[in-house]
Amino acid sequence: MLGNFTYKNPTKLYFGKDALNGLYEELPKYGKNVLLVYGGGSIKKNGIYDKIVAILRASGKNIYEDGGVMPNPTTEKLKEGIERAKKANADFILAVGGGSVCDYAKAVSISVYCDEDPWDKYFLRFEEPTCKIIPVGCVLTMVGTGSEMNGGSVITNRSQHLKIGHVFGDEVFPKFSVLNPEFTYTLPKYQMTAGFFDIMSHILEQYFSGEDDNTSDYIMEGLMKSLIHSSLIAVKNPTDYEARSNIMWTATWALNTLVAKGKTTDWEVHMIGQAVGAYTDATHGMTLSAVSLAYYKHILSYGLAKFKRFAVNVWGVNPSGKSDEETALAGLAEMEKWMNAIGLVMNIRDLGVTDDMLDGIVKATLIMDGGYKVLTSDDVLSILKNSL
Amino acid sequence: MLGNFTYKNPTKLYFGKDALNGLYEELPKYGKNVLLVYGGGSIKKNGIYDKIVAILRASGKNIYEDGGVMPNPTTEKLKEGIERAKKANADFILAVGGGSVCDYAKAVSISVYCDEDPWDKYFLRFEEPTCKIIPVGCVLTMVGTGSEMNGGSVITNRSQHLKIGHVFGDEVFPKFSVLNPEFTYTLPKYQMTAGFFDIMSHILEQYFSGEDDNTSDYIMEGLMKSLIHSSLIAVKNPTDYEARSNIMWTATWALNTLVAKGKTTDWEVHMIGQAVGAYTDATHGMTLSAVSLAYYKHILSYGLAKFKRFAVNVWGVNPSGKSDEETALAGLAEMEKWMNAIGLVMNIRDLGVTDDMLDGIVKATLIMDGGYKVLTSDDVLSILKNSL
Repeated sequence: MLGNFTYKNPTKLYFGKDALNGLYEELPKYGKNVLLVYGGGSIKKNGIYDKIVAILRASGKNIYEDGGVMPNPTTEKLKEGIERAKKANADFILAVGGGSVCDYAKAVSISVYCDEDPWDKYFLRFEEPTCKIIPVGCVLTMVGTGSEMNGGSVITNRSQHLKIGHVFGDEVFPKFSVLNPEFTYTLPKYQMTAGFFDIMSHILEQYFSGEDDNTSDYIMEGLMKSLIHSSLIAVKNPTDYEARSNIMWTATWALNTLVAKGKTTDWEVHMIGQAVGAYTDATHGMTLSAVSLAYYKHILSYGLAKFKRFAVNVWGVNPSGKSDEETALAGLAEMEKWMNAIGLVMNIRDLGVTDDMLDGIVKATLIMDGGYKVLTSDDVLSILKNSL
Repeated sequence: MLGNFTYKNPTKLYFGKDALNGLYEELPKYGKNVLLVYGGGSIKKNGIYDKIVAILRASGKNIYEDGGVMPNPTTEKLKEGIERAKKANADFILAVGGGSVCDYAKAVSISVYCDEDPWDKYFLRFEEPTCKIIPVGCVLTMVGTGSEMNGGSVITNRSQHLKIGHVFGDEVFPKFSVLNPEFTYTLPKYQMTAGFFDIMSHILEQYFSGEDDNTSDYIMEGLMKSLIHSSLIAVKNPTDYEARSNIMWTATWALNTLVAKGKTTDWEVHMIGQAVGAYTDATHGMTLSAVSLAYYKHILSYGLAKFKRFAVNVWGVNPSGKSDEETALAGLAEMEKWMNAIGLVMNIRDLGVTDDMLDGIVKATLIMDGGYKVLTSDDVLSILKNSL
């Protein structure tokens, strides 16, 4: 049953091969001082940086730079970004990169005019911003997180071994995002496929929760089928525009709030994966792929009807002659085949997890209550051991 | 392949049993003079009118009324509404009803400050508004048109025998819409099921176009499966909240611009149905149901791959041992079974069409070019004869 909710998504999207031209329409809406935020510098190699700087200059902007945003943005980097934005007296933040860069830009945007420590306020206490927010726009160069059309931001505190995400309200959403599938072509295959599973995991986290019949479940089944279909094409031919554009669009709708409206959600895989990430600095999507099968097998009997539906509707498993559990397990087996086919990391040892880390990862794992089983520490330890 | 596009949907939705309370949040954003637009007066019988007037009064608004909006709003009524809005010096238009009422409110909103004849400007010449627009909010009491979250408006010119829809840009979208599934319970079954097919037709019009593989097609398959599932429950038990809420949500997403992004669309069934409606004043959804099967059988061979996909993915037709055409036809046969099961009008004679009207309906039918076959007048006549 669809519960009560409100829905509004204020982000404007420019999609396609000419999407960057949307900057000409958007930039005049904001002041002169633009903080240009980006990651390790790949955008300087593939020419995207030059194109964007040219448009910023043509639009009469003063450009201030904040590069070097890491895949798991840290509290230290956040402090640096806040200082850079203050020195620039930034009127606007333009994030160019993947979800990490966009997440980080949002965290900076709500912290510059905030007197409190942003880690404590936003990520430990999950408060909403009460200070002035600097508007943010995103140019996406990596697909997966959905950060281009939501209020999510994930920040890592290395000293506390914590990686925490907060989904903020719509005032924190990017004002606009530029989605050109061609900008994702040069991404290394490891990052590309990690992004594919990040998308899948976002859908699974929202799908595997609740016993009700919900339009969102049908939409999610459609998104998963599109992703499975296109990802198998993209790993063979990363410049297949049709596949990459459909994956980019699927990623946005997997996590721009729509499919969670009116239903419960889980997010326990992200909690375990983020704890693994806090210990290993591994690529986000791979931390999710490495623990997912162990997690879902662990909880399968508690949400059997939904796992059976997943097997039949998403993976085309024929349930005749099978017990519900056999059908459900056959669905996970099909998912495992797909995961291997696109080349995901399938265990946490390959991400650098060692046995002596396990207790710490268990302690760093937040426990959610929307899934089919509320995990105990022993459950988490068991899932981690089955993921090794 | 997803073509280039921009996406933004500014409408805020309040969904659920308490959705009407959203008015307390929204009304203070607008001026004091509110034009309350509604239809034949059913909202006075079921108590919704009293609830809304109480909230308007509590919010300190001056209430001006414009009731009697008919199912196919006419140019005469539009002129009346413009005069009422002018006399009220309306700051805000609150539409309470189904898609017709919401469509009409939008047409008034863009015409009050427009010097030209709105029929000529917006519906014959398809121009965008260039004058001041009065903001509109909708309280939905009937599901189907998606008008609550889009810029669409359909107006009928009785003297010209024309019923024309124009999908305006996002400045014409309602600022907010209130979606309480319980508000749809008292709708007569005929209107309810007509709305169900209107939803289905919106999806089919966007689905049956183009040869490409597109995430939108997968989303639409999910929406159709949800609709089929819930409609069969709702016709047996109209107060099944789960079914009615899922249908309401499906209707919104079937026509709030999302699933058409980056792909071609058809809309020929709506053109034929609207021509039938201009001659008979029949309920919109029933004009669509009465001509759809004849239309789709007529064009099936031109879009065979998609019709086969429709049969397999939406209706669960097993294609093994069948030719593509047999599979495709089996899908339409399944759709026909569902249409009969929910009690739709299956031919245009039952809507009051007589043989002497056919030539006029053919002439009043606009020809679109996004479907699998661009129709000739002979095609339209043949489809109408097969719909009798």
